[in-house]
Amino acid sequence: MPDDGNAAYGHKSFKRSPSHFTDRITADGRDGWPVEPGRYRLVVSRACPWASRAVISRRLLGLEGALSMAVADPIQDDRSWRFTLDADGRDPVLGIRFLAEAYDAREKDAPGGVSVPAIVDVPSGRLVTNDFQRIPLDLATEWTALHRDGAPDLYPRKARGEIDTVMAEVYEDVNNGVYAAGFAVDQEEYEAACAGVFRRLELLARRLEGQRYLVGDTITEADIRLFTTLVRFDAVYHGHFKCNLWKLAENPVLWAYARDLFQTPGFGDTVDFDHIKRHYHQVHTGINPTGIVPLGPDLSGWRGPHDRERLGGRPFGTGTPPGPVPAAEEVPALTA
Amino acid sequence: MPDDGNAAYGHKSFKRSPSHFTDRITADGRDGWPVEPGRYRLVVSRACPWASRAVISRRLLGLEGALSMAVADPIQDDRSWRFTLDADGRDPVLGIRFLAEAYDAREKDAPGGVSVPAIVDVPSGRLVTNDFQRIPLDLATEWTALHRDGAPDLYPRKARGEIDTVMAEVYEDVNNGVYAAGFAVDQEEYEAACAGVFRRLELLARRLEGQRYLVGDTITEADIRLFTTLVRFDAVYHGHFKCNLWKLAENPVLWAYARDLFQTPGFGDTVDFDHIKRHYHQVHTGINPTGIVPLGPDLSGWRGPHDRERLGGRPFGTGTPPGPVPAAEEVPALTA
Repeated sequence: MPDDGNAAYGHKSFKRSPSHFTDRITADGRDGWPVEPGRYRLVVSRACPWASRAVISRRLLGLEGALSMAVADPIQDDRSWRFTLDADGRDPVLGIRFLAEAYDAREKDAPGGVSVPAIVDVPSGRLVTNDFQRIPLDLATEWTALHRDGAPDLYPRKARGEIDTVMAEVYEDVNNGVYAAGFAVDQEEYEAACAGVFRRLELLARRLEGQRYLVGDTITEADIRLFTTLVRFDAVYHGHFKCNLWKLAENPVLWAYARDLFQTPGFGDTVDFDHIKRHYHQVHTGINPTGIVPLGPDLSGWRGPHDRERLGGRPFGTGTPPGPVPAAEEVPALTA
Repeated sequence: MPDDGNAAYGHKSFKRSPSHFTDRITADGRDGWPVEPGRYRLVVSRACPWASRAVISRRLLGLEGALSMAVADPIQDDRSWRFTLDADGRDPVLGIRFLAEAYDAREKDAPGGVSVPAIVDVPSGRLVTNDFQRIPLDLATEWTALHRDGAPDLYPRKARGEIDTVMAEVYEDVNNGVYAAGFAVDQEEYEAACAGVFRRLELLARRLEGQRYLVGDTITEADIRLFTTLVRFDAVYHGHFKCNLWKLAENPVLWAYARDLFQTPGFGDTVDFDHIKRHYHQVHTGINPTGIVPLGPDLSGWRGPHDRERLGGRPFGTGTPPGPVPAAEEVPALTA
């Protein structure tokens, strides 16, 4: 996640910094970072919607064996993301306590802060990229030699124009819009952002009323990007970020769409609501000074019937669903 | 409202102070304050659920002519409730700028702070009572000589045992429970209060599934007290006080019950959602440091069909609904 905790206060308008490290890991290695199995480590927080795009893409594409993953503690301290969930507080592969160490190994005191998703070169311990927009696209298009059999095409060439358009609208109004609402420091700025979130959600609901996925009839990167915000909506954005015209659960189309994806292998099995709720409510003390984490919402509905199969569509195109989550990466099952 | 703004922080458990001024205005005048038309002024905030009990009772009983009403600005300053909505910032009847002046006229530096509802003796300018629990009951039982024709019996003698029991449960778990959740300073305290709110609401929903009102088949003071919390639930308690297991609008029984009352003359026509939303979000800076007032929720549903008439019941018993709101006391109609 771009480092947007309390630092975002004081900005007149909430602006997300561009990623500072934009090297790409490609099949041809043209930036010096060729795709190789076992060479890189993806560092994420399960709390973070931007990191979660990469987590879901990696699962859908079956890259778990080729690209290992480190999960940071959802609660950052003043050195940012840390590996306090691991034994001795160190990532077992990188051997570091703070993600900042990999950033420093690449460039000391780089601007933009420490963010996830980040990909680290394991042999050198140096950060390669924190380009949250690019990482999942490269997993889909550059890492193809390492994809599992039956992996879907998440960024199909012939649909990229439409996918890019939808993703740009979703990014501006929804993915980033909820942050602009939540971190607003004056009423007018908040109202514009919040109204923009719901205006776009209404348009998306209209689009999704008669089609199962955002673009074409299969899951694409556009769905992944909308999902990562929707799955957090009632749990954190509705209350904590004041995006409260209605709950996701009150919008029949989007709620069914989100549950359909949640129940698709590779989506819900990456979601840790405990990490999500604790991160937002405990880290943003400028919005929630007590740090208290709400008991709600009731999450049991995520497993309920959604009836979206009637719209047709082939979630994985000519491919197949991913296999089970590796044991070491399992998230707690939904209780409630 | 008992003065529970930011002062409530620092308490391990949220405790509501008992009212300090508990003189009663009675038919026989035994405390020195006989019921008399035109002698007293009821001071309220439309934001405040405790004051709103008295506002609704006064309307249902047709006491508008006998007991005049002053509406304070929903935003207190460091001198508490003030008459900044009136010309020159003074209450036109009492001639004071701050309710505290009437408190001071009665007793300088009294403990417990300045709260609404308050009843002031107009000739002397002195506070008579701020006993929020007692005031509406006395309007119902001591002011009977001044009730309108067709006024309901809001506290019928034969049902008082049951009404008192229900009101005690509603007070502890719901009316006050939402404050205990909202002002909690640690997680455990919050969770106990929030769980208690919803446990009680579930029980109340079960009770109200087959009967239109809480006690007997007519509106009583018990309904008024539950209503004043329910009408604020989605607008402030759900998000601001983190009572978010579900929205009122997601509970079919309570949502229908609350809308039935809202649409009954004397209830919804006293509710000012703007006052409610601004008060909570702008005054409690310890919970909402930015003071931003959420755009939501969509309030249009309050006017929707509730289908509770099928349960029978006679809202006003053998009486009749109150007439229209006096022009000077009209609240803005629900838009949205």
